[in-house]
Parts: sequence; C-alpha cells; structure tokens
Amino acid sequence: MDRTSDRVNRLSESATIAMARKARELKSQGQDIISLSLGEPDFNTPDFIKNAAKEGIDLNYSKYMPVNGYQDLREAISKKFSSDNEINYNLDQIVVSTGAKQSIANVVLSCVNPGDEVIVPTPFWVSYEEIIKMAEGIPVFIETSIENDFKISPSQLQKAITEKTKMMIYSSPCNPSGSVYSKDELRSLADILVQFPEITIVSDEIYEHINFTNNYFSMGAFNDMYNQVVTVNGVSKSFAMTGWRLGYIGAPEWIAKACTKIQGQFTSGTSAISQRAAIAAISSSPSVVNEMKSAFLKRRDFVLTELKKINGIRVNKPQGAFYVFPDISAFFNKSYDQFNINNADDLTMYLLETAKVALVTGNAFGSPNCVRISYASSILSLKEAMSRIGASLDKLV
Amino acid sequence: MDRTSDRVNRLSESATIAMARKARELKSQGQDIISLSLGEPDFNTPDFIKNAAKEGIDLNYSKYMPVNGYQDLREAISKKFSSDNEINYNLDQIVVSTGAKQSIANVVLSCVNPGDEVIVPTPFWVSYEEIIKMAEGIPVFIETSIENDFKISPSQLQKAITEKTKMMIYSSPCNPSGSVYSKDELRSLADILVQFPEITIVSDEIYEHINFTNNYFSMGAFNDMYNQVVTVNGVSKSFAMTGWRLGYIGAPEWIAKACTKIQGQFTSGTSAISQRAAIAAISSSPSVVNEMKSAFLKRRDFVLTELKKINGIRVNKPQGAFYVFPDISAFFNKSYDQFNINNADDLTMYLLETAKVALVTGNAFGSPNCVRISYASSILSLKEAMSRIGASLDKLV
Repeated sequence: MDRTSDRVNRLSESATIAMARKARELKSQGQDIISLSLGEPDFNTPDFIKNAAKEGIDLNYSKYMPVNGYQDLREAISKKFSSDNEINYNLDQIVVSTGAKQSIANVVLSCVNPGDEVIVPTPFWVSYEEIIKMAEGIPVFIETSIENDFKISPSQLQKAITEKTKMMIYSSPCNPSGSVYSKDELRSLADILVQFPEITIVSDEIYEHINFTNNYFSMGAFNDMYNQVVTVNGVSKSFAMTGWRLGYIGAPEWIAKACTKIQGQFTSGTSAISQRAAIAAISSSPSVVNEMKSAFLKRRDFVLTELKKINGIRVNKPQGAFYVFPDISAFFNKSYDQFNINNADDLTMYLLETAKVALVTGNAFGSPNCVRISYASSILSLKEAMSRIGASLDKLV
Repeated sequence: MDRTSDRVNRLSESATIAMARKARELKSQGQDIISLSLGEPDFNTPDFIKNAAKEGIDLNYSKYMPVNGYQDLREAISKKFSSDNEINYNLDQIVVSTGAKQSIANVVLSCVNPGDEVIVPTPFWVSYEEIIKMAEGIPVFIETSIENDFKISPSQLQKAITEKTKMMIYSSPCNPSGSVYSKDELRSLADILVQFPEITIVSDEIYEHINFTNNYFSMGAFNDMYNQVVTVNGVSKSFAMTGWRLGYIGAPEWIAKACTKIQGQFTSGTSAISQRAAIAAISSSPSVVNEMKSAFLKRRDFVLTELKKINGIRVNKPQGAFYVFPDISAFFNKSYDQFNINNADDLTMYLLETAKVALVTGNAFGSPNCVRISYASSILSLKEAMSRIGASLDKLV
C-alpha cells in the first residue's frame, strides 16, 4: 500500500521533533516528564508584537501579498541588516518565508544540483542534512569536538573543499553547541572561501540576539564576501515567536529571485498577520530582548555549575543560543539494570525512562559523543532536571 | 554570476502572480488599471474569524505545534469532511499546511518519482504543472474545450493512463473554468480509476463552497475510491482568508505521514494564529458563506450578460468558483495599430495596454484559446471593465 516517493524515503523525521513528540506522549500518559528537548524560548511573545498582529487583523491584512513579503516588512528587515549587521541589502535581495527553515530550504533548492557537495560543520542543526538530501546534494561534514569549542579551523575547511563544493551552511550562535564565531575566526575562514567564488555560504544567524559575547559579526559584512553570502534570520528565537513561523534572508539578487520563484510554487507569501507582527518585532530596539537574554545567561551558568558536579560529564562554555552540549562519551559501555549504554541515543533513552528528562541525542546533530540540553526552561525545572540526570547517571557502572 | 539550480530553471513564475505584479506596477505608475487577474474574494475575512484569531493571540498560541496541525483544528476538519463531504478521515489522516498550494506540493512530492506521469485535465490551476516539474514528474494533459464544458470524458481518461501513471490532479469547481463535476460524471471517471489502485487522485476542492449547483460531491466519498483519493481543501476562498495561508488534506494514512515528514523539513506547522482562526471558520455553519456566494452569483450572471454582447466572444455558464473562461480565439490573426493578436497572450497584453484591464491568458492554464476573467470584484468595476474590454475588442480587425 505504501508507495511513498524515493525522496520521502531518503528523509528522516527531525530528531528534535520526534523527541518532543515522544515526551508529549509520555506526558499525556500522566508521566512527570521534564522536556529540555525543543529549541524554543519559554517566554510569551511580547505584548507590543501581539498588539501589532491584532492591529493587522483589524486593518484586514487578509489578502494575497507579494511572494517575497510585504514591502514595509522588507524595508524593516533591510534597516535591521544595515544597523545590526552592517550589511546593505535592497528590497529585491530580501525574501520573507514561513520560518527560517523554509528560508534555508529555498536557498538550498535554488543553488544545489543533484551530486553537488555542501560543507556542513558538525554539530549542525538537524534540518540542514535533510534539506540537502531533499535537493539530492551530498553533505560533507567537518568534525569538531568539545576540545576546539566545536569550531572548525581554516585548514579543515580547506581540506573539505573539492571541485564539487557548491555551498557551506553553518549557524553562529550554533544550534546545538552554542558556539559563536568571532570576527577574526570568520575572517580566517573567509580568506579561504573568497578564493572559491562559486561557493555560496549560508550564514544561519537565527540565534543572533541570544549571544553572551559583546560582539556579533556576520560573514556577509565582509565586503569581499558580500556576493557569496546568504544571511538567514527570523523572529522565532529572538522574540519568542516560534509559532508565528517567520524567517527571512538577505542574499545576492539572483538567489533571492530563485527563492521567490520556488516559494511562489510551494507556499506563496508568509501568513499576513505574522508579517504584520514581524514588522513590529524587527523595527523594535534590540534592547527588548535583553530581559530574555539575561534570563538565559543566568540559566546557562546554573546548568553549567550543576553539570560540572556530575562525574563523567564534560562541558565547554557556550557563548550563545540556549543550549549546552556536554560530551557524555564517558558513560559509553556502562550499564544499569536492563539499560546498556552504547551511544548517545541509548543515553537519552535511558534518561527519558529513568530520569523522566527529555534531551536530544548528539547523533541527530552529527556529534555522537554529546547530548543537547535546552535551558529554555525555568530555573526550578532545570534544577529538578539536573538533579534527576545526576542521580540516573550515577547509577551507571 | 547566476548559478541557479536546474530545478529552479525548470520552473516558470506563476502567470497569475506575474500578471498581478504587472498590474500593481502599472497602477503604482498612476495608471487606472482594473485587475481581474487574481483569484481571491474581494471580501474581508468575517469578524467572528478575526475575533478567534485575536483570542488565539491573547491565549499565547505562539509556540511550536505538531507539524500536521493542532489537534483541535484537525478535529474540526475531520467533522467538516464527515458532514459536508461524507468522508471519514481520522486525525492521523489530516495534515494542515501553509495554503492548499503546499498541501498539493506535499502530496506530489510524497508520491511522484522522477519520470512518473501525472494526468492533468486542461484547463488546470497554474501551479499543478510547476509542482509536478519540481518533483520531476511528467504532466500528461487531457484537452477539453468550451464545447464539452471544459470537462474530460471517461474515454479520454482511459486513453491517458499508461503504466507510468502515478497520479491525477483536478479541481472541481475548476479554477479557471468554473466547471463542477456532478456525482454521475465523477462516478464514470471513478469506474476507470478504480481499476488502477496504484493511481492516487488529488481532488482539489478549494472552491467547494462557491458552487451554484445544488449538489456537491467529492470523489473520496465513493467507498471504492477512498484509499486512492486525497481530498484537498482550505479556508482561502470559502472564508475570504487567502492571506492567512491555510490549506489541508484528508488522505490515506501513508500519504498523510509522508506529507508530514516532508513538511517537517520545509516549513513545520502552519502559523499558530492562522490555525486558531481556521478552527472558527471550519466549525461554522456553511451558511456564513452564503452572502458571499449570492454576490458571486449575481456578478457571474452580470459578466456573462455583458460578454455575450461582445462580438466574437464565446462563453459557457460556469457553475462555481468566481471565474468565467471565455474562448477568444475568434480574435486571433486580427490587429489594431501596432498590436497583432496571434494568441491569448497577445490578447491579454493588448487588453492591459489599451483597455487597462488585467486578465490572465488561458495559456497559463493549458487552454490557449481562452482567457480567465475573475469576477471577484464589485459590479461597478466589472461594468467598467466589460465596457472597456468590449471597446478594445471592437477595434480589432
């Protein structure tokens, strides 16, 4: 009966979505699950953004709009890129989509032919790999580890480039590692990439505002890289707007045009009301997110302190996003009761079953020695979760 | 510089979107353009739906949701299918998407492998062809004309089926022809299709409620077709909600699962607020759309009366949607001034330039002898438009 196409059979379900679903199911069975698995702020969307959406409803923004987004939203995005990132994109270089996920899918489908190689530093956001497979591209992973703060080196990048390389995708701040590339680090990568003008670089900056360093730098702000870089951003993480589904790109015009063409046949424009809400969010001062950011910083420090108390867990100090990404390989080949831990998948299942805490296996992000802990949760939940995790891990011998 | 992928180069821009853009540009230059080119109601979204959306905002529906849609929305959709269409779909057979366009793209990408054939009766909605090309399928067109009310016959269908046929897509009421297949007509097609259980039928019912016959029948309601049919619908046309971007399917479970998998990597769930609005719309009595429907009926009759006064135009009587689809081939090989009319494209450009009325060429829908006139516009505009069209066409010799 099942006659799904080859392209669907090539895809995996998003591991973060799968873990969230599993946690939801156990919860609905009455189990006391603490879910630290999904990547979204636990805050509500700020009121001034909600009010802008309601105003959009009252003003009857309910008709078809340009596929690439309302002009006034693209104007707000253009200003944001210029003031926050020192990148000048005109309105024809900006495309608004149903989430940054669609933004990235549009770009990959626009640039990658079957057999083209796409460089992806590990750990990577889970959907990169699946989107590349949708386009029949070949992901080429560059491995990193906790020792080098989960960042790639210029020589690793140089070695990964072949004549088939068409694209590189990375996020900074990184989901899942929380690492943030400095301007100098980006420059040393750019020095290599600029020699290959046929390689498009997708810079996923969705966690830009959840960044505990004092600086943020965008690869696209290097003049010599401007024509090679697509800058991806959105309102989901910075403004607690995940459910509104709105992402956007700034890009060379030929890429923006191709993305608009693809999107015109897949979904057309993004929900009108989400666009009206996004104008308010993006036009606001970055300071509106400061409260959320300082809460995240406190939680990060709390989680790091607690994790360091647990024997066998190794952590670095993530500089952004709202994840810690500990190396838990010290528990491999240990066991308790009927549970045998051979890898990070086993460990997350063990913690779900015994500690009732949902994390995501590092395997999903291409880092099989790690697990991802989202700290977008209250200190109270985090405290309880860390204590349960510690107790469960202590049982493993 | 332009290195767009082959798949983008295969795509055409949606002709309806292109014409709308052109009309918008001319308008912004100060020209008095009447646009009858885009397919959306000229009504506002009803207040009770807008209020439901605002309530969703107040209740902080702003987090990630299940990829296939909120459970209560899928419950409302399940009830709607059962009461309006006599089809029973459980919640796992329903997938909510960002517009019926994405619903259809999901289904095609889920079922069609490169080289598979997809039967498409002409005239067809413009995006079918492009979506099939995205999936590297081969569209197989069945021609119809005004003489047979733009409907295919069983024998035409029989002849179009080969061992490579994987799917058939049609809309009823049809965009652009307005034709509505009766239960008997659908049965005679089903008698053939049921012999080919490997063919999936996509029944696009987005114009269901804008239907001037007293009956509406869904192919999926035939028991023997239930496992072959995907029923596509949405809130855009029936509830004047195009900008909210929400469509959905009821489908065999393996297709619903595949669509959810694909959508999870492209866009994830549909905008939370649009989903809250859609629950109100879909749960309402169909009578809420009656006012809109009777306005459309009056306009249809007005436009038909006016068109019949113009020498050379041939019309049938569309039974649904909000389009008339006249055959204008009598004007081919005529000319006026510098304008030479060789085809429907030439005629629509001629009318845009001289009558300042924007229509869409039938070529875009696979019917090169026709043009599409949307009557989702006030009687006043329609009157002025018909008079201008008449004057311009009279000049052609």
